[in-house]
Amino acid sequence: MTDTDLTGRRILAIVTNYGVEQDELVVPAQHLRDAGARVDIAAETGDSIQTLVHDKNSGATVEPDLTLDAADPADYDLLLIPGGTLNADSLRLNEAAVGLTRRTATAGTAIAAICHGPWLLVEADIVRGKNLTSYPSLTTDIRNAGAADWVDRSVAVDDTHGYPLITSRSPKDLDDFLDRIDTALTR
Amino acid sequence: MTDTDLTGRRILAIVTNYGVEQDELVVPAQHLRDAGARVDIAAETGDSIQTLVHDKNSGATVEPDLTLDAADPADYDLLLIPGGTLNADSLRLNEAAVGLTRRTATAGTAIAAICHGPWLLVEADIVRGKNLTSYPSLTTDIRNAGAADWVDRSVAVDDTHGYPLITSRSPKDLDDFLDRIDTALTR
Repeated sequence: MTDTDLTGRRILAIVTNYGVEQDELVVPAQHLRDAGARVDIAAETGDSIQTLVHDKNSGATVEPDLTLDAADPADYDLLLIPGGTLNADSLRLNEAAVGLTRRTATAGTAIAAICHGPWLLVEADIVRGKNLTSYPSLTTDIRNAGAADWVDRSVAVDDTHGYPLITSRSPKDLDDFLDRIDTALTR
Repeated sequence: MTDTDLTGRRILAIVTNYGVEQDELVVPAQHLRDAGARVDIAAETGDSIQTLVHDKNSGATVEPDLTLDAADPADYDLLLIPGGTLNADSLRLNEAAVGLTRRTATAGTAIAAICHGPWLLVEADIVRGKNLTSYPSLTTDIRNAGAADWVDRSVAVDDTHGYPLITSRSPKDLDDFLDRIDTALTR
């Protein structure tokens, strides 16, 4: 449970239908809904989402609320990009996902990405000048994409360059990640 | 079977112990050994290598010949970097793998990388000025790392900038990939 009241806030989470790291989708969605927010989960298709645990074992299946093609970032207060290596690697090939991520940043709306999720930020070319973190294997890709720096912290918040960006390294950082998401949604 | 005689040639294949795409390791190793070459497979540890099929289902297990720490690129005529999303994502975090890849390029020795394998080239910072291909999700990372261009072809060969580089997109390209590896090993 949380003390934060997020009634009226809307969050869009974007994933593929296979491979998102279970806790990076399920834990934030539950946390935000418990606080009164509406969380819409958009996937490539309307089929069930097969999550994974540690990229390897089958986790919970989750029903999407809409498809990536149908999602309009203008309807939301925050875009959530979970990880999972296979999920994030596939998501960056989805033009709808890349396009709506870029439009979210252009509109000045907050984005929160964790673990391998920041690959989508690289693909959308919206890390230039930003300080951020991620799963460590993305460090070189993020720096090469023009980030100000890749930082090794549980959560990084960067409000510069037109939109608020919240990033974390792995599921172990979820408490700090969610704390900063709550803050972004209540200010 | 192959008509090419690779007797006396030595190839080093480098992988993690989990997640290499089965056919990107097993098919080249068999092809090269059938042609008379010696193929040494180096993994992070001496434990069995669990391959995957399409990043998802368990494939063959393979015994490594040595560990990445113990491999000396000076002993080989070609470095083979297979893919598999999870394998390639982890391999770039292994300092021994990154170091020996960089030393192979510096020595002017040939490198062949397929699918997600080219992430290791990005990590070793040896794609500058090169034309190469890969699994399409790596396109942006490769361009951001300074490649001359990412090309959408079954195989790309680039002999410029100090070392021969052979790259392919996926297991479907293995015939063309192996054909160019044979050529590189016989000239």
